[in-house]
Amino acid sequence: MNTDALRYRRGHADRFLGELKDFIRFPSVSSDPARAGSVKECAAWLAGHLKHIGLERVKTFPGTRHPIVYAEWKQAQNRPTVLIYGHYDVQPAEPLREWKSPPFQPRVRGRNLLGRGASDDKGQMFTHVKALESYLRTAGKLPVNVKCLFEGEEEIGSPSLAGFLARNKRALRADAAVISDTQMLAPDRPAISYAERGALSVELEVSGPRRDLHSGNFGGAVHNPAQALCEILARLHDSGGRVAIPGFYDSVRATEPSERAHLAHAGPSGAQILTEAGERKAWGEIGYTTYERTTIRPALTINGIKSGHQGPGGKGIIPASATAKLSFRLVPDQVPEKIAAVFRRHIERIVPDTVQVRVKTLSGAKPVMMDPRHQALSAAAFAYRKGFGATPRLVRSGGTIPPVIAFQETLGIPAVLMGFGLPADNIHAPNEQFHLPNFFKGIDTSIWFLAAMGAQRS
Amino acid sequence: MNTDALRYRRGHADRFLGELKDFIRFPSVSSDPARAGSVKECAAWLAGHLKHIGLERVKTFPGTRHPIVYAEWKQAQNRPTVLIYGHYDVQPAEPLREWKSPPFQPRVRGRNLLGRGASDDKGQMFTHVKALESYLRTAGKLPVNVKCLFEGEEEIGSPSLAGFLARNKRALRADAAVISDTQMLAPDRPAISYAERGALSVELEVSGPRRDLHSGNFGGAVHNPAQALCEILARLHDSGGRVAIPGFYDSVRATEPSERAHLAHAGPSGAQILTEAGERKAWGEIGYTTYERTTIRPALTINGIKSGHQGPGGKGIIPASATAKLSFRLVPDQVPEKIAAVFRRHIERIVPDTVQVRVKTLSGAKPVMMDPRHQALSAAAFAYRKGFGATPRLVRSGGTIPPVIAFQETLGIPAVLMGFGLPADNIHAPNEQFHLPNFFKGIDTSIWFLAAMGAQRS
Repeated sequence: MNTDALRYRRGHADRFLGELKDFIRFPSVSSDPARAGSVKECAAWLAGHLKHIGLERVKTFPGTRHPIVYAEWKQAQNRPTVLIYGHYDVQPAEPLREWKSPPFQPRVRGRNLLGRGASDDKGQMFTHVKALESYLRTAGKLPVNVKCLFEGEEEIGSPSLAGFLARNKRALRADAAVISDTQMLAPDRPAISYAERGALSVELEVSGPRRDLHSGNFGGAVHNPAQALCEILARLHDSGGRVAIPGFYDSVRATEPSERAHLAHAGPSGAQILTEAGERKAWGEIGYTTYERTTIRPALTINGIKSGHQGPGGKGIIPASATAKLSFRLVPDQVPEKIAAVFRRHIERIVPDTVQVRVKTLSGAKPVMMDPRHQALSAAAFAYRKGFGATPRLVRSGGTIPPVIAFQETLGIPAVLMGFGLPADNIHAPNEQFHLPNFFKGIDTSIWFLAAMGAQRS
Repeated sequence: MNTDALRYRRGHADRFLGELKDFIRFPSVSSDPARAGSVKECAAWLAGHLKHIGLERVKTFPGTRHPIVYAEWKQAQNRPTVLIYGHYDVQPAEPLREWKSPPFQPRVRGRNLLGRGASDDKGQMFTHVKALESYLRTAGKLPVNVKCLFEGEEEIGSPSLAGFLARNKRALRADAAVISDTQMLAPDRPAISYAERGALSVELEVSGPRRDLHSGNFGGAVHNPAQALCEILARLHDSGGRVAIPGFYDSVRATEPSERAHLAHAGPSGAQILTEAGERKAWGEIGYTTYERTTIRPALTINGIKSGHQGPGGKGIIPASATAKLSFRLVPDQVPEKIAAVFRRHIERIVPDTVQVRVKTLSGAKPVMMDPRHQALSAAAFAYRKGFGATPRLVRSGGTIPPVIAFQETLGIPAVLMGFGLPADNIHAPNEQFHLPNFFKGIDTSIWFLAAMGAQRS
């Protein structure tokens, strides 16, 4: 049955690529209110496509800001159920001038497909859609029961997902979830991540005078909010690269020496990570390797700063305010709400009385850790060997996939992080791309994964 | 002769105000290349207006980026020559949403005229234009010889002016310059500034990775350029509010105790300055009053910071770079070029080897100091007593008027800083305004000033 599906995939590769391009053309930027219409259109296109390939009960549910697209196929009696999760929303494309081609006009360059969402996550989630089509258009059935759940709010922290899962617990019952939204180590080195860092996104605004002031008339006599913000931000790390917020490390679980040894072998080298980053020099918490700093240790990152004059040339002002967007990456057993509280408390303690400060929590997600020996992870390892000809490494990831914790906590199932992305994909950055061999091998891997899951009794 | 001029001024107040509004309607933002056409149109309008009121040899000269408008009247034999300087270019109007009415649609609110450039400097320079008209349309002549020099590049550091003065040294010969581009202490408290701070505007860019990085995959393992910028900026002041750049204070001239005592009496109180700034708490160099910190002491101000994500919501990135615009205010005998060099040297010394840094000098202007007993300053004091009914205080200012140093160095003449602005004018900020009583009293004061100068032999 899967031989036919694999042959169908090979026979329709060009069309599959064309459809992925159509999918990427929607500028479904979930964080930008001005793009809400495009997100909705993208959801409608996706729902239509799922219906077209033969899935059943295709439906679009309203989310907090953007729709959830659902579809299913439940005719594989006595077989397990796989919940396929993905997200059709994307990160903002700015800065636009750094793109080699327009972000929402996908273009093949060499062996890569360029476009916002090409890898994160439209291209990766589409591998499963095309695997399902390859079965349904050949055998007319699937080897397992399947429930597809594609959301449009992942890049804004999945505000609706946990509630949706809780409200539809029975209907969404499954044996395992599969999510393709992570990276392999290299084109020939697949990986299965069994741990993801959590996240906490906050905004910090420092304000001073009621309005921008003339820097000649007042320069030297008032505490500049931009300067005060820098003084605060500069104090959030110590000279050893540790986050200098009291209580921040209190709940960090120590990693066993055996796991650290495994990761040192399975994960990328420090030099590899720096090469991917385009950095010459490492930086970070003393006592940990570069890979450990991005996986088993938490981090605090400034995502953006905005204050005062932004245009060309100079402008002689003391800005009335300065704002920074920050994000934490959290590890077990840190809790986003508690970290938000220690952060707020710390800021209130260190802010000088010459300025005012406002702290706003934007979103939070718990860190997650899975059992690397679960049978769904074994099925994924088998599928990778078939699809990529290589045994996947079991690794930990630095990123955050809020749905994984939601599946674990609400539905009680593990999520197989079957990543087809590559470190060079430039996700969240200009010139995002998806390695086309991974798109096609990814479809094959999904075909094999569904077959391996189907070989199990439910 | 000046009685008729004063009567004419009173009889044409409404038309004068209407003409000032026309002048403000040109969005002559000199720093914005997109506004170059508007700057040019504004210059043409001004030249036409000067011709219309009866000035001679009206001409527009090309500057580095924007034109210089020149006009003269030289029929007052054996009388001194006054060089009237002003600038018709304005600061950017951003942030636009904070304006109560559109910045280039001037509107009278209460006793103020709102609009970008209303005070700085269109309204103030226009007082002299209307004083000249009041003489020429009544007596048909002026009590002194006059040369008008109105430039369009003041807000970008007057890049053409010094060269223009040097090239036209003979043609511009005069006994004194008068510039109305400063503030009075209050509506009934005129002031003549005999010292201005210099300025040095620089841009500092910190860069790290080749592109924005995913903060999940790399957070904790690379030195964030935004963080590195904050760490650098936070180190530019010590905890006592002093600029922490070695060599920065080396050439700062100590102020005599007698001058400090005079300024403590003549200048605004610390409480007044804080009220104007809308600040509750003072900040600055220990050992100096708030007024001294803005006049006899140099300062370093962050004018703007830009890095990474600027839009709504969060974005999980490590920005590839971070940029700050900074400006120094300098006092005698600091030299902008030397301060630029000590700044660059200091930055290169403190930048960590995990990031790259680029320092760019945008513009510089020397500090200036004049003899408070010069006869042109006495004529101005007399004129203020007539126009405002109050004796002006002799004060020092924190701002920077590059032309003043150019007049002193190239033409060898003092510049009378006959300010008609008020601290509440919001110059360089949203809701810039000009106090209308000061516009009309300013015209009267200019009429009296020209009369007093004309009473002297050349």
